[in-house]
Amino acid sequence: MRSANLDEIKSALDVPAAIESIEAGFVALSSGAATVPPVGHIGFEAPPGECHIKYGHIHGDAVFVIKIATGFYENPSRGLATGGGMMIVMSAETGEPLSLLDDSGYLTDVRTAIAGCIAARYLAPDAVECIGIVGAGMQARMQLQYLRHVRDCNRVIVWARRGERSAAYRREMADAGYDVRVADSLRDLCDSSNLIVTATASTAPLVRSEWVRPGTHITAMGSDTPGKQELDPLLFARAGVCAVDSLPQCLDHGESGYAVAGGHIAEASLVELGDIIAGKAKGRSNPREITIADLTGVAVQDIQVAKAVWSALRNWA
Amino acid sequence: MRSANLDEIKSALDVPAAIESIEAGFVALSSGAATVPPVGHIGFEAPPGECHIKYGHIHGDAVFVIKIATGFYENPSRGLATGGGMMIVMSAETGEPLSLLDDSGYLTDVRTAIAGCIAARYLAPDAVECIGIVGAGMQARMQLQYLRHVRDCNRVIVWARRGERSAAYRREMADAGYDVRVADSLRDLCDSSNLIVTATASTAPLVRSEWVRPGTHITAMGSDTPGKQELDPLLFARAGVCAVDSLPQCLDHGESGYAVAGGHIAEASLVELGDIIAGKAKGRSNPREITIADLTGVAVQDIQVAKAVWSALRNWA
Repeated sequence: MRSANLDEIKSALDVPAAIESIEAGFVALSSGAATVPPVGHIGFEAPPGECHIKYGHIHGDAVFVIKIATGFYENPSRGLATGGGMMIVMSAETGEPLSLLDDSGYLTDVRTAIAGCIAARYLAPDAVECIGIVGAGMQARMQLQYLRHVRDCNRVIVWARRGERSAAYRREMADAGYDVRVADSLRDLCDSSNLIVTATASTAPLVRSEWVRPGTHITAMGSDTPGKQELDPLLFARAGVCAVDSLPQCLDHGESGYAVAGGHIAEASLVELGDIIAGKAKGRSNPREITIADLTGVAVQDIQVAKAVWSALRNWA
Repeated sequence: MRSANLDEIKSALDVPAAIESIEAGFVALSSGAATVPPVGHIGFEAPPGECHIKYGHIHGDAVFVIKIATGFYENPSRGLATGGGMMIVMSAETGEPLSLLDDSGYLTDVRTAIAGCIAARYLAPDAVECIGIVGAGMQARMQLQYLRHVRDCNRVIVWARRGERSAAYRREMADAGYDVRVADSLRDLCDSSNLIVTATASTAPLVRSEWVRPGTHITAMGSDTPGKQELDPLLFARAGVCAVDSLPQCLDHGESGYAVAGGHIAEASLVELGDIIAGKAKGRSNPREITIADLTGVAVQDIQVAKAVWSALRNWA
């Protein structure tokens, strides 16, 4: 088994190839061509932490992937990142371990950012005037930087609950070549942008429906576990397309679950991103409609990003 | 993270230390001091194979362990072993991966053999005249070789469904210093031995109750998955001690499950090996009684054998 460290993984990562790979993963998930067992979980109390094990196989693939992801919430006080983990690529023909991607959770950030980028590819307006970023953490940075692969827009407006974090985000993204303004308010952010990404740990709606301009696309990616919420459920009633990464998962703990439970839209109005990619469901059909992508994170993203990196590493060897 | 290959793992393995470690694991399991989530599983059809993920944490430990085990049934036709896998030792304080034991399934064989050896330590007669081995595969070899750590007996009688495999077993174990006779029949084996280990993939009882001599201990270890069975359920009614590694698991798919379902013994007659080790339940109390150990394999064995190897490797570093 070949092990790859974080530097090797970063060098091997070809973002356009990983985007294609993850798109194919969403299509496989939505068409029933993936086996994705329930996520394994073990919790720890002192210090508080948890470990998730996500794994699965896309039918016909020569490999399958196991991801181990950890979150230990007192790590920052030790000077360590909260999240960590690794991905293991295994042969689906012999069971042999082929590659250990010792990525400390980096590829999870990547595959999450790529899902946002895929949602924007199929749903965002062709002409993005300004990108609104809600949140100022790791995903707020990565989502913006990955969007450049699908939409050409340099203008950014950012909002975070804590003003000093927005200011730090503005400086850092300006260094990366973006023209960033800190929003006066969330309403200001919505007024100024037609592609919005929410990437917070919020547990109550942040973006009010009436603030959102016609023609806007919103990707919400903070609802990765039960109890989180970023969007006003009323927005779903206004949207022309309500896309989800996984229907059962989004109904369970995504933004869409609140909208369906509240009677704002019918479950049948939700479409899976994989079906939009495959052309089985419609994406954006006119420049005035609002579109939403509700992303909770699915194992096919892990499988596909690991495969993309593993293929590149193998070609080097 | 430090990786260890099979040679390093074999060098680091201190069997007496691993026996103590696994005994402590059984005690933790039976006293509720271990968190052991449900086993993860993914299956493959072409070629047929499966992968199990077992993991858990013994409360208070600084580490937890994840084991990935594979079985691909057409591997022998490619010149590969059917089983494979690895164990990963992770920090239970920060989530960091500490050690990858790339053991290709070896430590699973070891921890399985050690469970048999622990059962014999607490239940076998002090004076073992002859060890009866039912089966001639890997575990039939390892069980015998590990028993020397707890009972001093060189005389062996072996039975396997295919005679040529018994003959090969006899030759190989003779080379390892044992005095081995191939049994004429299973009845002959039972007549000749007072410590019997069954290690087959049988799906119907092999050892009939009336063949077993008073004072005999039997460890049955073939019932690791539903549908397997090696012992006549009637034997449980004759036994003074019916020990199991895990009560719920043995009731579900161990030998004991058949005995309880058939009304031959009450569920309350079953005792966990961990409680015997801890002195909370009685082991063998007289030289004439029959004792049974029904072993299905539990994740605490994996955790504890991995910890034992990891500790030794760490002391080297």
